[in-house]
Amino acid sequence: MSRSYILTLSCPDRPGIVHQVTGVLFRNGGNIQSSRQFEDSETGLFFLRIAFATAGDDRAIAAEMRSVAETFGMTWQLVPADRRTKVLILVSKFDHCLSYLLYKERIGELPMEVVGIASNHPADALQVTAIGDIPFHHLPITRDTKPQQEARIKALVDETGAELVVLARYMQILSDDLAAYLSGRCINIHHSFLPSFKGAKPYHQAHARGVKMIGATAHYVTAELDEGPIIHQETEPVTHADSAEDLVRKGREIESRVLGRAVTWHVQHRILANGAKTVVFGD
Amino acid sequence: MSRSYILTLSCPDRPGIVHQVTGVLFRNGGNIQSSRQFEDSETGLFFLRIAFATAGDDRAIAAEMRSVAETFGMTWQLVPADRRTKVLILVSKFDHCLSYLLYKERIGELPMEVVGIASNHPADALQVTAIGDIPFHHLPITRDTKPQQEARIKALVDETGAELVVLARYMQILSDDLAAYLSGRCINIHHSFLPSFKGAKPYHQAHARGVKMIGATAHYVTAELDEGPIIHQETEPVTHADSAEDLVRKGREIESRVLGRAVTWHVQHRILANGAKTVVFGD
Amino acid sequence: MSRSYILTLSCPDRPGIVHQVTGVLFRNGGNIQSSRQFEDSETGLFFLRIAFATAGDDRAIAAEMRSVAETFGMTWQLVPADRRTKVLILVSKFDHCLSYLLYKERIGELPMEVVGIASNHPADALQVTAIGDIPFHHLPITRDTKPQQEARIKALVDETGAELVVLARYMQILSDDLAAYLSGRCINIHHSFLPSFKGAKPYHQAHARGVKMIGATAHYVTAELDEGPIIHQETEPVTHADSAEDLVRKGREIESRVLGRAVTWHVQHRILANGAKTVVFGD
Amino acid sequence: MSRSYILTLSCPDRPGIVHQVTGVLFRNGGNIQSSRQFEDSETGLFFLRIAFATAGDDRAIAAEMRSVAETFGMTWQLVPADRRTKVLILVSKFDHCLSYLLYKERIGELPMEVVGIASNHPADALQVTAIGDIPFHHLPITRDTKPQQEARIKALVDETGAELVVLARYMQILSDDLAAYLSGRCINIHHSFLPSFKGAKPYHQAHARGVKMIGATAHYVTAELDEGPIIHQETEPVTHADSAEDLVRKGREIESRVLGRAVTWHVQHRILANGAKTVVFGD
Repeated sequence: MSRSYILTLSCPDRPGIVHQVTGVLFRNGGNIQSSRQFEDSETGLFFLRIAFATAGDDRAIAAEMRSVAETFGMTWQLVPADRRTKVLILVSKFDHCLSYLLYKERIGELPMEVVGIASNHPADALQVTAIGDIPFHHLPITRDTKPQQEARIKALVDETGAELVVLARYMQILSDDLAAYLSGRCINIHHSFLPSFKGAKPYHQAHARGVKMIGATAHYVTAELDEGPIIHQETEPVTHADSAEDLVRKGREIESRVLGRAVTWHVQHRILANGAKTVVFGD
Repeated sequence: MSRSYILTLSCPDRPGIVHQVTGVLFRNGGNIQSSRQFEDSETGLFFLRIAFATAGDDRAIAAEMRSVAETFGMTWQLVPADRRTKVLILVSKFDHCLSYLLYKERIGELPMEVVGIASNHPADALQVTAIGDIPFHHLPITRDTKPQQEARIKALVDETGAELVVLARYMQILSDDLAAYLSGRCINIHHSFLPSFKGAKPYHQAHARGVKMIGATAHYVTAELDEGPIIHQETEPVTHADSAEDLVRKGREIESRVLGRAVTWHVQHRILANGAKTVVFGD
Repeated sequence: MSRSYILTLSCPDRPGIVHQVTGVLFRNGGNIQSSRQFEDSETGLFFLRIAFATAGDDRAIAAEMRSVAETFGMTWQLVPADRRTKVLILVSKFDHCLSYLLYKERIGELPMEVVGIASNHPADALQVTAIGDIPFHHLPITRDTKPQQEARIKALVDETGAELVVLARYMQILSDDLAAYLSGRCINIHHSFLPSFKGAKPYHQAHARGVKMIGATAHYVTAELDEGPIIHQETEPVTHADSAEDLVRKGREIESRVLGRAVTWHVQHRILANGAKTVVFGD
Repeated sequence: MSRSYILTLSCPDRPGIVHQVTGVLFRNGGNIQSSRQFEDSETGLFFLRIAFATAGDDRAIAAEMRSVAETFGMTWQLVPADRRTKVLILVSKFDHCLSYLLYKERIGELPMEVVGIASNHPADALQVTAIGDIPFHHLPITRDTKPQQEARIKALVDETGAELVVLARYMQILSDDLAAYLSGRCINIHHSFLPSFKGAKPYHQAHARGVKMIGATAHYVTAELDEGPIIHQETEPVTHADSAEDLVRKGREIESRVLGRAVTWHVQHRILANGAKTVVFGD
């Protein structure tokens, strides 16, 4: 009975990496289904993602990979392709991204397990209809309660075993502490084509500047606001006739789509960290 | 014998404008071919562009329009549709935008009269092959000669009667004085999706930031660098695999196209000023 | 107290139409908020959509318009901008378009009143979570029951007063009779960039042909299958690596968006019939 | 002194291919610069393109590859990355694609050697200004002279050693015989998003159908007209306001770009044949 796995790795580039890694798979009956690689000529780093199937023992592959990884100084991961990433979603009042993600999950298009939804608004202030049995946590935030509520978010991450936190239009600015805690395992959607229009009310900034397109950016959260590694961006044309409210409306589409792609690629192990950037082996 | 005209106007919005203006055309045998209007609910301004044909006397229309314009406080213009705008093009070493514009003009797609090309590089340093009989002015610029060369640019504008100056990847920063002199009648192409990556080497900035798309922005030149009213923007996806040089290469396409559209719309009187923004009745 | 209205009309083009119509509005205190027009030089037809506000009596405007309409041979309509179009949605097993439309309606972005949902599948076979109180009609179809079920669809249209029927991935082919009955008031989403890949399984056709993009087409239903007037189309690039199933998945996005735009424009009275084509004054 | 090479291959997929091929490179001091592969799960075929640099002897690599190729039943090619493909371009009256390709070549962006240009129109009927020293062949075609002129095209291919023939809006239909002769080494640009609007005057067909987008398709020529393997397609939105002539104008852009990409990818050995389809390892 064959099972599929995803192997990802990065290391300093030098001759022989692919030959060695494919040798491990070949010797263990691994059948490569798709393989993507990238040589960063600037940093001298090498990145690889291989999807393969094997009827054999993945522990044997892991054992051999450990040895190869040591030789090449690799950061690597081997996971069953059907293992679902545990995801905690944070949302505020605008829940179009949340609604979008939950529907994708329902129809089997986004292989994640939503272990919880947390919001600074109560559930009945939301429009989304797909929460169902997913645990919902109302964490109202005032200036005074912010430290406690962020502590509860941390606790939620720990208790649920969430591997990824998604800020699905969560409009609270994370403290440096929480941002650092979630660094590398938290995806945010910013409603502009960063680095344009950082900070608050980007559509209003865009309208005031008179730009002819709007966009959205999904990025990993780091301690520095709106500066984390960019995963995906899309844009769409607008005109002089679009008011700031029109931009908000038109932006919902693109925010949902951009965040949806970023989350999908993350849980499919298609994104590798490359310093302040990402390597995205998109589908 | 019928002739086509373009009427453009802007004024504070109030009831009756279109009724009055179309009344002028109706009484003078004007046949509307296309009409575009915009009511800016923020500023309370109204914008109109009408293309019409008439076998009658355009001076009669102009006379009636003067009266209507006075009533409504209009800024307005009436020009024959077949009158070619005189254009002076400035270029540096990278001449893909110049080549693009000249070919469009040759095949009758861009109704302008190129009255001159000026460059800080000599003609034989360029790759473009379509200059032909167009007067070419070599204006080499050093720190010491900049004032004199800018004076020559001003003189060129005056002598040639240029109504529009196009900075087709002209890599010299205009002095405040020249920028002010050309304000409102000079279009620049900036090789990023402004306001991202202002200033020098935007593709290298974009690469360093790890953005997932590049773009170009055509805008009117004002005294403040890269801050003039935006006319048009387009973007295109890029990936982690694109080097800064790849971005430069991919950007040529989009720069040419964005500048080409902006210049075309300008000479077709499709762009109206709206403070720090533009109203673009694109085709 | 001011109220907004949408006036749409079409007629043979001749001088004076806009002057007359804006005269009606001016005399009745109408304040134009936006106006779009189109002169079809091929057919000689003129199309107009005006959004205006007035504190006055719309019956007076309607009365004057009747007279103007008679003069110019106009087809016309005057409706309050806040009147919601009654919509009946038909769906089969794949309900991503339905889910998309219902969420848009919930958040106030799609001004329609959903008077019913009908499906050849039972409600519990669907993934959509937003049906709520909307009447759901299970109309299973076999070869034998098709005439009766189509009769029930007709009855539903009549009983609910549905002004628009939306085929949101309704995978049953309408009989000529039902198609004719719904002609001009029924929008279908076809999952290809028509006229490519008419008929069944367009993504599989597209995959077999090896095209490098997929698309979706929203069109009015007419008796001739996949030949009705096209309202909107979008496309998206695909690659050799996309299987037919990948195309199906990627297409969901674009189908939802294209249908959503078409329905929104319809209920905002932005679409005018122009023979076998449409005039779309999109936002 | 290191030199770069491109290795491309396809064969039935089975475990060990990449391991073997990278072994050949590793043993011969090959340093992989980029690698792209595709496993076609439908046909069971495997496709690979590797760009690598080596200071060693490429004949040693070729010798080892011959042995590997025999084992796996590979179709394969090993070429120096800096070898320029010889290209013959055929054009009719509309020369925007030709102009575009020649400018790209001039600025070093399209690594080809244009060994000749042939047209059924004389050089002075063209607008392009970049022909320079490239041999130009005027091959006027009438119904009577078609066989002789096609014989001259064949002769041109042979005499110039052209490896690729580009139909850059060459508006003559090739005979079955010539199409077969050029099969697999001839790229055509069709001005629609195939399979829509095959045959003559696609923009006029598109206008008559009222589609909301236009496109262009670059494909390999086969004996069956407009049915060859598709290399690349792009589309662009149009509206009801676009006349057939507007579509022709707007299409020039997209035709040039689509053909330019296809030719660039071909001469960079990024396209592999996959039956009636292509595998495109685009940049």
